[in-house]
Amino acid sequence: MMGGNEIFEVIKKRRSIRKFEADKSIPIETIKDIISAGSFAPSGHNNQPWRFVVIKDKDMKTEVSRLTAYGSIVKSADTLIAVFINHPASYDRDKDLMAIGACIQNMLIYISSLGLGAVWLGEILKNKDRVRDLLKISSDNELIAVIALGYPAHSPKSPGRKSVEELILNVY
Amino acid sequence: MMGGNEIFEVIKKRRSIRKFEADKSIPIETIKDIISAGSFAPSGHNNQPWRFVVIKDKDMKTEVSRLTAYGSIVKSADTLIAVFINHPASYDRDKDLMAIGACIQNMLIYISSLGLGAVWLGEILKNKDRVRDLLKISSDNELIAVIALGYPAHSPKSPGRKSVEELILNVY
Repeated sequence: MMGGNEIFEVIKKRRSIRKFEADKSIPIETIKDIISAGSFAPSGHNNQPWRFVVIKDKDMKTEVSRLTAYGSIVKSADTLIAVFINHPASYDRDKDLMAIGACIQNMLIYISSLGLGAVWLGEILKNKDRVRDLLKISSDNELIAVIALGYPAHSPKSPGRKSVEELILNVY
Repeated sequence: MMGGNEIFEVIKKRRSIRKFEADKSIPIETIKDIISAGSFAPSGHNNQPWRFVVIKDKDMKTEVSRLTAYGSIVKSADTLIAVFINHPASYDRDKDLMAIGACIQNMLIYISSLGLGAVWLGEILKNKDRVRDLLKISSDNELIAVIALGYPAHSPKSPGRKSVEELILNVY
């Protein structure tokens, strides 16, 4: 198992990837491994409130692309992973949303470490019910994010981060 | 930089650690590195809504321990990292909570890769305003999690996870 320095590098080098190589496809088994990595996040009472829909079909990607201002990213991605919160599994919305954020971060780090790229899309949530209907998912589940992924076709710079000194409000 | 298999192992081997070795202390510089790892999570519009208070002082840990049913974990931890959402920085509570979950997961993975251990505490949020007052933090910030960390004094088993097949609702 690798040590802290290497993990820090992976965490730091991950970027949001918005342009993907055409005609390079990710095997469905790799997508399942990515979701498995997500599933090892911690959750309150181990309630695992996350659920997923995988979209590789071109026509379905086109339909989804019409429901967001970032349609070109959605259409050009090899795969979409739609992430839902499962209401029957949920016990505390704030805590469950944070757990799902942890799950998504596991996926993003693992995707990056495979040499693949992804972007976490949130603007599409303005049409979350229409996306859910399109994907024929019951209202027990609520769309909470869409991950668009594929082989990276650009190497964006980091948008920059606040310093640790700015982020630490107090030390006791 | 390490590849996907090694990252998957780190993600899978992370556990919630609730018992810590007494008298083994984590340097403050390492705590700052852990927070730095957290800060590389993605956030909507790169708003970085996370803020932190670091607690190493024994008396302050004792005060905090009185505000949760998990006081013994809090008291025995070497360090507490209290995590806040910064309201002025926030643009969408759901999305900001997920971003903070991603930030916390970066920290938990990095902590684990250093051979340290941590647990993400949520129950203490029942007293989030009292914890905030105790830490002398303005109401611009809301307590959203407490991470208790130290040198692991046990090796708990995984609580188990749903299979990927159970988590994927549909494939297109």
